[in-house]
Amino acid sequence: MAAKRQRKPDKPRVLLVGASGTLGSAVRVELEQRHEVIAASRSSKLKVDIADAASIRRLFAQVGKLDAIVCAAGHVHFGALAAMTEELYAVGLRDKLMGQVNLALLGRDVLNDGGSITLITGILAEHPIRFGSSASMVNGALESFVRAAAIELPRGLRINAVSPNVFAESMPGYAPYFRGFEAIPVARAALAFSRSVEGAQTGQVYRVY
Amino acid sequence: MAAKRQRKPDKPRVLLVGASGTLGSAVRVELEQRHEVIAASRSSKLKVDIADAASIRRLFAQVGKLDAIVCAAGHVHFGALAAMTEELYAVGLRDKLMGQVNLALLGRDVLNDGGSITLITGILAEHPIRFGSSASMVNGALESFVRAAAIELPRGLRINAVSPNVFAESMPGYAPYFRGFEAIPVARAALAFSRSVEGAQTGQVYRVY
Repeated sequence: MAAKRQRKPDKPRVLLVGASGTLGSAVRVELEQRHEVIAASRSSKLKVDIADAASIRRLFAQVGKLDAIVCAAGHVHFGALAAMTEELYAVGLRDKLMGQVNLALLGRDVLNDGGSITLITGILAEHPIRFGSSASMVNGALESFVRAAAIELPRGLRINAVSPNVFAESMPGYAPYFRGFEAIPVARAALAFSRSVEGAQTGQVYRVY
Repeated sequence: MAAKRQRKPDKPRVLLVGASGTLGSAVRVELEQRHEVIAASRSSKLKVDIADAASIRRLFAQVGKLDAIVCAAGHVHFGALAAMTEELYAVGLRDKLMGQVNLALLGRDVLNDGGSITLITGILAEHPIRFGSSASMVNGALESFVRAAAIELPRGLRINAVSPNVFAESMPGYAPYFRGFEAIPVARAALAFSRSVEGAQTGQVYRVY
């Protein structure tokens, strides 16, 4: 063993968007064990609003080269179908959908060869609930986008999505909307992010139900 | 048999949007056998541009009560992922996605009880091709939207989507992008529309691969 003479390699650098949320905090705990995690969110010192492409561009200008981009952020409007309008669907299309797509599009250039992008979708793509038509729409769009983008990314870049069930940690607020769903510990969803970042697959949707 | 004394019931009234396209023409042939088909498109006498909600509102103000709304229209931008931008994705989000979602939202009030809405998605939601990331995104969004909207529609209204493979009739132009795909006769896709309109299911995606 030549351990003494080997310089310990730098940890892979991961940009984590949405680092201060329930999911983001769990992803941070999981990834920090083996990565240098650069945390960004609307409330972090490193600020980003994914609904604003200019804000994403400013973020990438600050962070330098990365090995992975991970997103645990994305907002949609929840409301009864009867009350949904074009404008209310636009909230989710602009934020959770195109915010994450822009993270992927604009992040490609700062990723090292073989780097990865991991986006967040959710169970409502497959299993709808009342008030969730916008979330379903956006999650379905992200799943198909990831499958499609994966076959056209250059330089061995990879892209996957994590689609979790509702989090046990979120049930105090969400339980009335997710009756009967088997809520998962958010740490299980965080594991799927490490599977995407540290594995070798691309175009996958990791369902954590 | 009291046939002599029975007044023949009126045929169900179906609004067909995109009636002049390859698919729309085939859907018209299929449905006209048993329905009164009201044909609308960008080039029909009854004009509609689904990317414009005001145009959809004008259409519904003209057609009166309906038993079904069927859409065979929807545009997305095809282009290499490397050249795709937020603006180019917005084309498909505005036209094929929100155009059809607006047909459903704005059409609810003109549908008779138990009426149906049938939207068009496509195989790229599941099986991507080069240059197709926007089509995949939009088709995936529509599939999940249909599943979600189905559980919240009132008065027995139903909503389904048809997801066809590439059409044999379109292969002269599309073949280079769909090598190896088993192109289907457009009449097979038209059958799936009649299954949605004349069946009783809701929240379904009829795959015609």
